[in-house]
Amino acid sequence: MLITLHQTHHTIADFDGIYLYLEKLLDVEKYHNATEKEKTGLSFPSGIHLFPELFLTGYPLKDLCLFKPFVERYQKFLNEINTWSETILGPLYKNNKKINLLLGALHYEINESGIPLKIENVIYSLIPGKKLEKIYVKKLLPSYDIFDEAKYFIPGGNNPNEIGIYEWENFKIFTLICEDMWPSNRYDFDPVDVCFNSLNNTHQMVDLIINLSASPYHIDKQPQRIQRGSQLSNLLKAPFVYVNRVGGEDEILFDGNSFIATGNKIVAKLSAFKKEVQTFNINNFTATYQAETASTKTNVWESLFKPTINFETKPLPTLATWSDETCASVLAALSFGFQEYAGKNGFKHFVVALSGGLDSSLVLTIVKLALKHDQTLTAIYMPGFFSSSLSTSSAEDLCKNINVPLRRLPIKFIHSTVKNLFKDQLGSELTGFTDENIQSRFRGLLLYAWANQQNAMVLNTSNKSELGVGYSTLYGDSVGAISLLGDLYKTEVYQLSKYINRVHDNAIPIKIIERAPSAELRENQTDQDSLPPYERLDVILEGLISNYLSLEELVNLGFPKVELDKTIKMYQNSEFKRWQFCPIIKVKNKSFGFGYRMPLSKTNLI
Amino acid sequence: MLITLHQTHHTIADFDGIYLYLEKLLDVEKYHNATEKEKTGLSFPSGIHLFPELFLTGYPLKDLCLFKPFVERYQKFLNEINTWSETILGPLYKNNKKINLLLGALHYEINESGIPLKIENVIYSLIPGKKLEKIYVKKLLPSYDIFDEAKYFIPGGNNPNEIGIYEWENFKIFTLICEDMWPSNRYDFDPVDVCFNSLNNTHQMVDLIINLSASPYHIDKQPQRIQRGSQLSNLLKAPFVYVNRVGGEDEILFDGNSFIATGNKIVAKLSAFKKEVQTFNINNFTATYQAETASTKTNVWESLFKPTINFETKPLPTLATWSDETCASVLAALSFGFQEYAGKNGFKHFVVALSGGLDSSLVLTIVKLALKHDQTLTAIYMPGFFSSSLSTSSAEDLCKNINVPLRRLPIKFIHSTVKNLFKDQLGSELTGFTDENIQSRFRGLLLYAWANQQNAMVLNTSNKSELGVGYSTLYGDSVGAISLLGDLYKTEVYQLSKYINRVHDNAIPIKIIERAPSAELRENQTDQDSLPPYERLDVILEGLISNYLSLEELVNLGFPKVELDKTIKMYQNSEFKRWQFCPIIKVKNKSFGFGYRMPLSKTNLI
Repeated sequence: MLITLHQTHHTIADFDGIYLYLEKLLDVEKYHNATEKEKTGLSFPSGIHLFPELFLTGYPLKDLCLFKPFVERYQKFLNEINTWSETILGPLYKNNKKINLLLGALHYEINESGIPLKIENVIYSLIPGKKLEKIYVKKLLPSYDIFDEAKYFIPGGNNPNEIGIYEWENFKIFTLICEDMWPSNRYDFDPVDVCFNSLNNTHQMVDLIINLSASPYHIDKQPQRIQRGSQLSNLLKAPFVYVNRVGGEDEILFDGNSFIATGNKIVAKLSAFKKEVQTFNINNFTATYQAETASTKTNVWESLFKPTINFETKPLPTLATWSDETCASVLAALSFGFQEYAGKNGFKHFVVALSGGLDSSLVLTIVKLALKHDQTLTAIYMPGFFSSSLSTSSAEDLCKNINVPLRRLPIKFIHSTVKNLFKDQLGSELTGFTDENIQSRFRGLLLYAWANQQNAMVLNTSNKSELGVGYSTLYGDSVGAISLLGDLYKTEVYQLSKYINRVHDNAIPIKIIERAPSAELRENQTDQDSLPPYERLDVILEGLISNYLSLEELVNLGFPKVELDKTIKMYQNSEFKRWQFCPIIKVKNKSFGFGYRMPLSKTNLI
Repeated sequence: MLITLHQTHHTIADFDGIYLYLEKLLDVEKYHNATEKEKTGLSFPSGIHLFPELFLTGYPLKDLCLFKPFVERYQKFLNEINTWSETILGPLYKNNKKINLLLGALHYEINESGIPLKIENVIYSLIPGKKLEKIYVKKLLPSYDIFDEAKYFIPGGNNPNEIGIYEWENFKIFTLICEDMWPSNRYDFDPVDVCFNSLNNTHQMVDLIINLSASPYHIDKQPQRIQRGSQLSNLLKAPFVYVNRVGGEDEILFDGNSFIATGNKIVAKLSAFKKEVQTFNINNFTATYQAETASTKTNVWESLFKPTINFETKPLPTLATWSDETCASVLAALSFGFQEYAGKNGFKHFVVALSGGLDSSLVLTIVKLALKHDQTLTAIYMPGFFSSSLSTSSAEDLCKNINVPLRRLPIKFIHSTVKNLFKDQLGSELTGFTDENIQSRFRGLLLYAWANQQNAMVLNTSNKSELGVGYSTLYGDSVGAISLLGDLYKTEVYQLSKYINRVHDNAIPIKIIERAPSAELRENQTDQDSLPPYERLDVILEGLISNYLSLEELVNLGFPKVELDKTIKMYQNSEFKRWQFCPIIKVKNKSFGFGYRMPLSKTNLI
């Protein structure tokens, strides 16, 4: 049996695009016009074609799946596919090939006003000449972090006729959709166990296991998928095929990375962040299956908090060091996420405000490395009274290094103007934080004036450490359309910068990496006047945000109490800044943004 | 049997506060020190004391319920209550009164690392001398709009020993938590039906029905609660007691409005937005119960889209007109929500940027009317090149009318300064939208400089119509800590303003209500240069956002196609502005904010 993996990449709700996709993938026209001899060489194999979860709609749709114009258009689209199958595909394949497309999709029950009564996350089978047929309903609906599926969908059931075994041409496929292969104590049952037990552990239980996924990227997720895929393959003694989509949906990236496991062997690997189609003859796979008993459930909350902290380092825990492979993966993810967001929102011009510090330098460099030939990138440098000559030369040197035009918009004069305005009109001098914030807000304002004028997209330059403690000015340096570094702690910003310098010829001037971080909003300011050293701050924040450590646990790890109190207070007092922050490209298990949901008002907890 | 309704009002996770609350409510100390004679007069009745859903933790906690410091502190708190019951309450009530507190709470199963394995939304019973006992688990977990309960909690089951009848002192109580009384096609079963059927429709099935709620406020919700409460009372032939909490949690308000229904009669009503404790002897209620069969399920999606549009008006549909009662309710809600957010975030000084237009005038007036004696309010007027003398006199007259100090910060000079800066540095003139946006951003910047300097909270002045079409400048007029009008369409802003003028002595100068709305960012600009008239725009937006109407349906209602295309495009293209917007006090069924979840990137849908 031939199995074709379609690692697709398209925009949500773009039905015309999806339709074209299907037509093109099947090369119908080419087939039609080909001679009998040519036909054998064409790339539309027979057998089973696997498309990712919710391929026919895109994912995640959020409230869009309830939006009537969407629902109507989608129903029409399904009818178009049925007609296409009956009138075009049917006659074409009548005497030829056995083909079965297994498509991730939504299945609606709708009332007479067009309002959904029931929505299911399903697999449709499409056999040329026949209509779409629902063959499986997703059973485990993830509802944690960024996932809200229980909000919209009704799960598939757990009764004996819903085990999830689909038979076609004497070929038995055990079907799963994404989360179905990740049982946890949050769910009543484990679809894999149910299947395993019902099959009574016979020698060849099924011919194939498939998992159609729309599985978001985060660092180190792929090894987990592969490990679990092998486990299932061993358990059910059949090849395991994992098909994941590619795409960037606002904050969330889908990385593809589809694969096939036969036992502990990975016999096929598709690329990361690229669409790809590959066909395999599963009869060619030789496999040895390990003994494997029923799978164990995980604690869904615990799995969210997978430690990225290395608790073993002395004297204090540190964040896990990134390998070159991790750095390359993160760089690929950020570049991809940036291009997806830019493309979907129609931007071709980009602007980054350089401060002379590392964060903005790294953002500029990532965008420059990801830039396509028809896109432009500009850096803007906006020196103020407290900008050092090191900052000026840093901005200039970086732009020279990576060949990005640099514009200067000094803020000194307007800064003085507003100081005078306040003195004249209100009789009060602008001082302290107010005077610091206003410089940052001038920069935000000038940056957006430039961006508006050039129809350019502003890249945000905040990092996760700043976001965690609110070390930024709302409507000032926190502005932007999308954040590339909002899921990277400052120590990770250093690691990624050094990696880029290793593989891209020291793109970022070394003096930028070596200088002490500073907001330069007052005389001789450095970040460490207000914050613990980043190597400690980042671990404390990760401990709070991802590991949900308590104050007591952090104290026991060796962090100074006074530093913890201060950090926790800053963390808790800055929810309002995170609420108004732009989307952040997600590269971690636990990130700020859509999946991070904390009360905004201060609690009396600590 | 005496029943005491505790319509509580406290902050989430404020365990010390909740403990004090319990102690104070029970007047333990007073009781201790009282003579035997005095004791009979003290206000701690025997019988059943009902506290709202999640009283012991607060609601909604969002991710906070997973946060280990919270979980640990809460477990300690439950132990403290047990100790208090055993050592203080127990001896005190030993020979005295039969008391049973029924408390909304969370019930955790925790693993050895302190990570939750299972969280349930429960009712604890507390009988003096005994420990907390779990007597009921919420069965229907709302997961739509602002509700994410399925994300965190495990539902109670549907087997015969979990019907939800709690018996104490030969008194049979049918227990429900909030959503349990609102069955829909989203849930497998209806807890009320299950109870009804299991009781076999005997004459007196239970002695009491209770619903402990944390039910958010929105316009016209109370009649729905009362109607459903009466239905349940008729069905089970017993008084129905509804206990709801009071509080403002960021966007969401809990309005109290607790009540008791015996059949179709409302025999008790507690206040809106105020904490209150009342005791009733349910033996005194005389009741006639109507015949009632099993309840009918609703469509949860449909119920979200309850029309606020009056489709009957000619020639075009309009938004429902607000009665004085509705205006009063909305005004109370906004005042309460403002004070809650201000109080919880520690602000005593407030500032509103007046434009001379109606939105900012209304915000200033609402805040002024809600102001407490230890709070201050300032208006700031920031005229630019295109501000009319009508705007100036409007701002001045309003402030005089309602006695609010007015500060002037003209932006003309800095506006010119930045125009020159761009010309000098970049050789390009600021024009068009760029030049409009920059004025709005200067105002945002100056407003925040003032607010920073005075440690004041900035009130946002956007309305729902503007938010719907993105008719605002990001980081400009859209800034603020919280939005009072973000859930009111412009036509509703007019209605509320006129209501305030009727009951508050024409607080808002009539010329502000009568003038044509304008952003005054270019010569002779009015809102209607860019937008359809508000009476049409608002219906189109409400049709899209709340009723999910399709383009075709809107065309059929009579709206001009060209106006619809333009509005829908503006609506779809402004998701990024709504993403970065501040919290909005929710007064509608469907609002922008936490419960509104749409993809940010543009879709190809229309």
